[in-house]
This record gives sequence, C-alpha cells and structure tokens, in this order.
Amino acid sequence: MASRIFDEGLDKTPANHQPLTPLVFLERAADVAPDRVAVIHGTMRQTYGDLRARAHRLASALAGRGLSRGDTVAVLLANTPAMIECHYGVPMCGAVLNTLNTRLDAATLAFILDHGEAKVLITDREFAAVAAEALALATVKPLVVDYDDPVFQQTGARLGSLDYEALLAEGDPDARFDGPADEWDAISLNYTSGTTSNPKGVVYHHRGAHLLALGNVVTCAMPKHAVYLWTLPMFHCNGWCFPWSVSAVAGTHVCLRQVRAAPIYEAIAEHRVTHMSGAPIVMSIILGAKDEEKRAVAAPVTFLTAAAPPPEAVLSAMNAAGFSVTHLYGLTETYGPAVVNEWNSDWDALAAGDWATRKARQGVRYLLLDGLDVMDPDTMEPVPADGTTIGEVMFRGNVVMKGYLKNRAATAEAFRGGWFHSGDLGVKHPDGYLQLKDRSKDIIISGGENISSIEVEDALYKHPAVANAAVVAKPDDKWGETPCAFVELKPGAEATAEELIAWCREKLAHYKVPRHIVFAELPRTSTGKIQKFKLRDQVKG
Amino acid sequence: MASRIFDEGLDKTPANHQPLTPLVFLERAADVAPDRVAVIHGTMRQTYGDLRARAHRLASALAGRGLSRGDTVAVLLANTPAMIECHYGVPMCGAVLNTLNTRLDAATLAFILDHGEAKVLITDREFAAVAAEALALATVKPLVVDYDDPVFQQTGARLGSLDYEALLAEGDPDARFDGPADEWDAISLNYTSGTTSNPKGVVYHHRGAHLLALGNVVTCAMPKHAVYLWTLPMFHCNGWCFPWSVSAVAGTHVCLRQVRAAPIYEAIAEHRVTHMSGAPIVMSIILGAKDEEKRAVAAPVTFLTAAAPPPEAVLSAMNAAGFSVTHLYGLTETYGPAVVNEWNSDWDALAAGDWATRKARQGVRYLLLDGLDVMDPDTMEPVPADGTTIGEVMFRGNVVMKGYLKNRAATAEAFRGGWFHSGDLGVKHPDGYLQLKDRSKDIIISGGENISSIEVEDALYKHPAVANAAVVAKPDDKWGETPCAFVELKPGAEATAEELIAWCREKLAHYKVPRHIVFAELPRTSTGKIQKFKLRDQVKG
Repeated sequence: MASRIFDEGLDKTPANHQPLTPLVFLERAADVAPDRVAVIHGTMRQTYGDLRARAHRLASALAGRGLSRGDTVAVLLANTPAMIECHYGVPMCGAVLNTLNTRLDAATLAFILDHGEAKVLITDREFAAVAAEALALATVKPLVVDYDDPVFQQTGARLGSLDYEALLAEGDPDARFDGPADEWDAISLNYTSGTTSNPKGVVYHHRGAHLLALGNVVTCAMPKHAVYLWTLPMFHCNGWCFPWSVSAVAGTHVCLRQVRAAPIYEAIAEHRVTHMSGAPIVMSIILGAKDEEKRAVAAPVTFLTAAAPPPEAVLSAMNAAGFSVTHLYGLTETYGPAVVNEWNSDWDALAAGDWATRKARQGVRYLLLDGLDVMDPDTMEPVPADGTTIGEVMFRGNVVMKGYLKNRAATAEAFRGGWFHSGDLGVKHPDGYLQLKDRSKDIIISGGENISSIEVEDALYKHPAVANAAVVAKPDDKWGETPCAFVELKPGAEATAEELIAWCREKLAHYKVPRHIVFAELPRTSTGKIQKFKLRDQVKG
Repeated sequence: MASRIFDEGLDKTPANHQPLTPLVFLERAADVAPDRVAVIHGTMRQTYGDLRARAHRLASALAGRGLSRGDTVAVLLANTPAMIECHYGVPMCGAVLNTLNTRLDAATLAFILDHGEAKVLITDREFAAVAAEALALATVKPLVVDYDDPVFQQTGARLGSLDYEALLAEGDPDARFDGPADEWDAISLNYTSGTTSNPKGVVYHHRGAHLLALGNVVTCAMPKHAVYLWTLPMFHCNGWCFPWSVSAVAGTHVCLRQVRAAPIYEAIAEHRVTHMSGAPIVMSIILGAKDEEKRAVAAPVTFLTAAAPPPEAVLSAMNAAGFSVTHLYGLTETYGPAVVNEWNSDWDALAAGDWATRKARQGVRYLLLDGLDVMDPDTMEPVPADGTTIGEVMFRGNVVMKGYLKNRAATAEAFRGGWFHSGDLGVKHPDGYLQLKDRSKDIIISGGENISSIEVEDALYKHPAVANAAVVAKPDDKWGETPCAFVELKPGAEATAEELIAWCREKLAHYKVPRHIVFAELPRTSTGKIQKFKLRDQVKG
C-alpha cells in the first residue's frame, strides 16, 4: 500500500487554496497600476482605479437590489465601457452575466430572457426598440436599466425607470468582495446561435474563464500593458475571454462601437494597438479601407481570427498592411478559442502552396486545453493521423463549458464518453495538426459518398471572379443530396453558372461538382458567419 | 433564496474538468513541436520528442519497480538533463520528487532521506562520497541509482547496482500516464535550509506548480521558444518551477553544471539565451568575467534575481553588459518567487536616488498569488501603507505550499489566521509595494529599539571600500543587543573599523551604528545567501 504521508495534515486552508477566478486580474491591476489607462472610449479614459471603483459600485448596487449567487443579469450592450464593467461587477456579486447578441430578433431575445431567468436587463438605448418588444414577449419581468453611451448620440427610448449611472450611484466603490466560494460557480451564460432549434444556454465557470484568459495571454504572447482593440463583439463567448485577459496584463481596452475602417485605423494609430480579434469580415473591412481612411500602422498588430481559415491572398494583404494574423478555432462551448494554428518558423521557407496548406489548418490545442482529438463518435476511437480519415472533433479539459443550462439531456449527449463532442468534422494530419472538414450537418451525402462542403467552396474561392461561396445539400430524388453553391461575385467581376461548374470539374471529383449555382447575397450572422441553415431552407423550398 | 439553476445538472465530468498539472506542458510541447530542441547540455541535444520518451521511460521504469502515488524519489543531481527528466518522469508515475541540495553535509542528507522516506535515490557520481556517507547514516534503504553525466568527467564511485540509463532501459517510451487523480496531490518535496532546527519538508502540489509555472511565463514575458540558461540550481524550490515553465512555451533548457563566467557567456552567445535566473552571486560572476571569458550578448537577456535587492551599481553594470534585471522575492514555501518588483516605465525618468529607492523594493504579488500583505501577526491587521510601520509579510493563495511534511504543528502555525506567515518583516509603501526590512530573527533589539540589520547593511554598502556586509545582534549586558557588522572589503580597497563606524554615524541614528566591525569572509549557502546564523553563533561565542 502506498504511503499516505503526503495526504495527512496537508489540507486546503484559506492560506494555500483560493478559488480560481478572473476577477483577481482586475484587483491586481488596480492595486499595481491604478493610474494606468484601462479603458479608452472616444475621448473618455478610465484608469484601472476607476474601472475597479465602478465595478465595485455595480456589484454592490446589484447586491443592494437583492441580486446574489446564481442570479442572472442579462445585458444588451455594444462594445462599450459598461460592457467591460459588467464582466467584472456582475460576477463580483455572485451573479451570472448573460451577454445578448445585439442583432437577435425580439422573439429570440425573449426566449433567452425567460430561459436564463433574467433578474436584471441592462440595455443600451440604441437597442431600445427590440428590447421593448422582447420584454413585452417575455414572461420574466427583470429590473430594466438603460445605458446611455456617453460618446454616442442616443435616440432610443428609455425603457426602465433606472439609468445605468444611477444604478452605479447606489453602489459603494470601496465595497469588498471575496470572489466565488467555489471556482466551479457559474460566471456567465452564452447562448448558441440555435440554427436548427432553440438556442442552448452555455454556462461558463470561474475556473475555466480564469484559465482561458491566461491561455490567451500565453498563446497570443500578450506583453504587459498590451493594447487591445475591440473589433470582436463582447457578446460573443464573452469576447473570447479577452475582457479578462487584458486586465491580466494591466493592458488597455480600446472600445469600438462600430466596426468600420476609419475608426479602426484611427484607434491603431492613436493608441498603438498591439492586439485585436475578429471574424474574417473584419479583415475584409481593414483591407477594403479607402485611402483616406487608412493611417500608418507603426508596429505590427497581432490579429486573431477564427471561423474559416483565411485564404492566402488575405493573409498576404494583411501582412502588407501591417497585421500579423493568427488563426484560432473554438466554439461557444470552449469559451471561444481553444485551438491555435501554432506556426512553426521552419514553415516560412515552404513553397507557397505548402505554406498555404499549413496555414489552412486549425492546429493544435491551447496550452490550457487538456485534450483535442478527432474520433469516431460511435467507438470513441481516434482516427488515424493520416490527413484524410474524417472524424468528429472532440475537446476535453478545464476550458470546456460547465454544461447547457437546464438541459441535462443535451449536456450528457455533448459529454458522452468523457469528451465534448463539437459537431465539427475534421482530420488529423501526421504531425497531429487538426484540420476542419465540415460541421456534421454541413456534410453532403450524395449517392452514398460524403462530400465536404468546404472542399467545394475552396474550389470556387480559387476562381478569380468569386468573392464568397457557400455550398449546401439540395435534396435529390436520385442521389439523396447534391451540392448546391451560393456565390457572391467580386465587384465588377463576371462569371456564369456554366463557367463555374466547368471550373469545379477541373478541380474536383465529378460527384462533388455543384449541380446548381445561385448568385445571391449570402445571409450572415452578426459575427460574420454565413448562415447555411437559411440557404438549406431555401433549397428545400 | 437564490436560484439553483446554475448548480443542477452541471457537474464535473472528464470532459470539462481535469486536474491542473505542469506535466501537460511537456505532453503538449512534444505533440506540437516534437523536433524542437528541449535540452542542451554541452554537445548533447534532446528534442521534445526525446525528452518525453525519456520521461515516460523513467516513469514506467519507476512504476515497474513498484513506485506509486505518494512515494518519494530523492535526487542528488546537478543541473543536468537527468534533473529535467526527473521533474517530469517522477511525478508522472505518481511519485514525489525530492531534490537534494548538493552542498549539504551527509548528516543533513541522511535526515532528509529518512524524514522524506525516500524509496529511490538517484545520485550523480560527483556526489558519491557524501551520498555514501548519508546512506550509511540513514535508516531508510532506498534503491540507489547512479547517474553518469555524459559530458562531465566522472570519477566518483558507483554506489548502487543500477545505472540511470539502465533504469530508463527498463521503461517504455510510449507508456501512457493519466496525470494525478487530484490536482492537490503532491508533486515535490523541498527542504528548508533549517538554520536553527531540523530542515522542514515543504510539500508542493500539482495545482500550485502548474499555476506558478504559468505565473513565470506571464511575469517574465517568456515568448514561445524562449531559451533558458540554468544558472539557478534546480534543487532550489524546483528551480522556481522553471523546469515546467520552459516546456509551457516549448522553449529550450540550457544545462550548466558549473556556474562560471566563461560557460555562461559561451551559452548566451551560442544558444541565444533569452532568460536566466540566479542569486546575486551569479551577477557578480558575470560582472567579474575576465575579458577573454566575455562574449558579445546580441539581444538583452532577462535576468531574474531574488534574495537581496541588487544595488544600483550592479543594476547599471548588468544593463551595460546586456542584461535586463528583474527582482523577484519568495520563499521555499511559495514555490520560489511569488512577488515581483513590477517596474512602472514612468519611473525610468526619476532622479537616481528615487529610482534606486523604487528598485530596492520587493514589489507586488505575482498574477497568480491571491494575497500579499504586511500584517501585525498577533492581530492579523494589515499595517498602514506608510512605508515605515513594520509588520510580518503574509502570503495567501494557490502558490503557497500544501504544508510541512509530517509536521502538523508547524503547518498550523505557518497558516494561522488563513495566511502564510513568512517570518520576513517588511513595510508597505503608499502605492502598495512591499519592501523587506528583515527576517524576524534578524531584527536587532537594542535598548528596546528595533534595528533593521538591512538598514545598517545598506549604510555600509554605500562605503566605497565595502564589497559585502552582514549585520547581526551581539548580546550586550547593558543594551540587550547591539549591532555587530561583518565586512568583506573590495579587492585592493582599505578601510579601518573606525572609519566605517564614523561613516555609519553620518548616515544612521546613533543607536543603529555597529559597535563592532569584523573583517572576514562571509559564510554563504549554496545559493549564495549569507548565513547569518553562523555569524550569530560566532558573536555569541
């Protein structure tokens, strides 16, 4: 029998065990660098001392209004100082922050308010109309707090009797908070986009938020006092946990209400931005800037992008414009990014094609993700690392969600076999790097053959006239399904359906070639993702 | 009553909860960068693939020899590849790594082997003589494994029947290990120097080692593939957890058997060292290098030092030599450094005296230390942040030890009131920065007045002839105690006791001036700390 000497008399005490939480990052930054600028928003500046005082005010005001552990505070906010304050003040009093996607319709917002059992709704006046409609539809009756953005002309109605600043005035800037009693306590609630059914409420805990925030610092090599520009919505996976990462390095948040070229370049030039994140659409905005909107980018800006791997042409153009692009991958269920295309400097010397092949891969696990694999979801056996066998991408570790709110069945299904089943399909290359092939539901099964819609899209993207492409399954009496492509052409470019089909025939196996080409504007989510489910509905109709 | 919706159906599962451990850092580096050089030792190179294979061999060989969770493996090793392998392979099989200070005497080593209940001793042939003596004195009969450093001429005897390489040959390079069942499990055992009584066994756990290793990466801004030169003994607080930090960034360990100027400069020049750590004595070695030993330092090397704050002259000289010095502070009980003199770039512009005053402070807590304060140990009330009121330095958080092995009383005493009592005395400045004033036992009480020995030493250090100074209490019939100074003069410099006393009178209150000056070589520990207890014994005799 093993010795027990290392177990006895060596218990957890407050001296040597404290719950992990990202809230300590703000406390430390405010202790160590109270005068450093934490938040920039237009002409407004908040120091770390200010940010802490306001977060403490918010937390104690909410506590004074009866909020406590496990109560939900929903917020319908743009990337404003209030949004950052809520990332600290709400969980500080034990409550759970539910950031709402500002582009959702009223019915979906009402569903989320009810499902999350919101006790408070903090809403920017810009979104007053949809918020009013959602509140009318919802069963819950949260305390409604209006936020007036001080640097944005507000025209929307006031919905509640309480203003955000008035709420803060109720609080104590010097209130003390002990942090969560347990690091497994919920910190936030993020709803999935729910393309096929009602959105699911993904619960994050303090432990995971702490660790993913640190993972960002290490993975993105964020130095002390990094300057982070908010081109990624904070309502999206809590801004990939960057509201907490930035404070960990006592850095500066540069708020940005609207993602447009001129204010992006202006912020980079004025505030010496070091890091920013966003969907591919943000890169399009940067690269599409008019000359008069551009400003010199003095030092390279690290640009973290997720979703589809950026095409080579985009990477080169971004590089020339002064941005160093790193490609991340993750899901709402993994706190945002948990996979990184970790670049080996040896690959810089590769021929263009090989280089692009490496760049197109999603990559390897974050330092703080314990497991990432591609498996057969039935047997839970890893697929061979051959770059061709498709399996389901699986995650395991402390940066995987606590589970789906009030949905034991979906949680159990997602975690079966001890791994989180992402629903994404991919392959594992011989060097262990992961490459996505498709979402399970995006695979097209034609005559019994699996067709990766991504592969067909890649072929279309290589055509010089194609700006964007999305391929979905079209029901077919003979083949079961066939690929149908939706295409946006570049401004001024021309191509016929026949030309594109001929192009694909040169590049793809015959059964993978789209039978139909539809020229149309692609429907997108607020974060720039193409909404294939809408296209799928269209081809079924 | 608060809602319970965030507690129900959201349990820990293997998918979303894994014990924190630094062992995953090696697994990830070996997965992501298997061909990158992990260890350099003379002409020898080990890739991350090699290092993992050897660590797995060691772990499975130890398991095959019956070692399991909570068994102690003691190692008497220099900064060699084997020492790095032991930091992974030993805890991988559940065992606890007990690194022995190679400069201890046989009786103390025997005490530690017995107290730690060592099952295995891995010992470098250089230390065969003292190891043989210790084994003869000890009650335990560990399996003895001899390590032959491949790049160092070995002359010592072989003590055991088993060679380190033969042990590894018993193991399986592809063995799989699940990591600790619980992150609170012990990972290592480090004995305090025990200046006044038997050494105490400080137990580290996987959680704390993981977090402090990450804390180093963030605090020292270690980039991907940092190159770390081993001028700090790994037997000292597990090398401040850097054996794990370096793998977290897939960096390179440069081993160094002997800390001398020529091999240090050679390593920096040949391997492009980015980071190194060490006691002040290492800076003396660097600055004392002969011209023919020096090599160009191409890019600034981050030098992390602990113990006494470096004098201004040393900092300037280090800077000129190509090193950027950061001053850390911690104890064996805090996994090594847990406090950093976090430098505010605004202070660069301060006048020399003010600049030096800031540099002399120990600083602020590591990002991953939850609490650091200066308190009255009786009332547990923080002292005012006035820069003058002395209290005891207290630590709290996940990077505080699990406790003292088999010593409930000492553990309870150290953790009373929910904080770790460091035994160090200090003040808190108005900006919250900590400055050490003394060890509790180093305070001199003369005529009822407290005298900080550091303050008297500071006055002596300012004298141009003084190289080193240590001040201790000398028993005195009239005053209780009086300050007695031990002084080393600079080579070629001259000063009399009378001159130094007169010098101190100009700078200090009268009662603080040393009554006796002794010119002598100062006794030091293996890590370069001055052993005041020996001086105290001397003045008592």
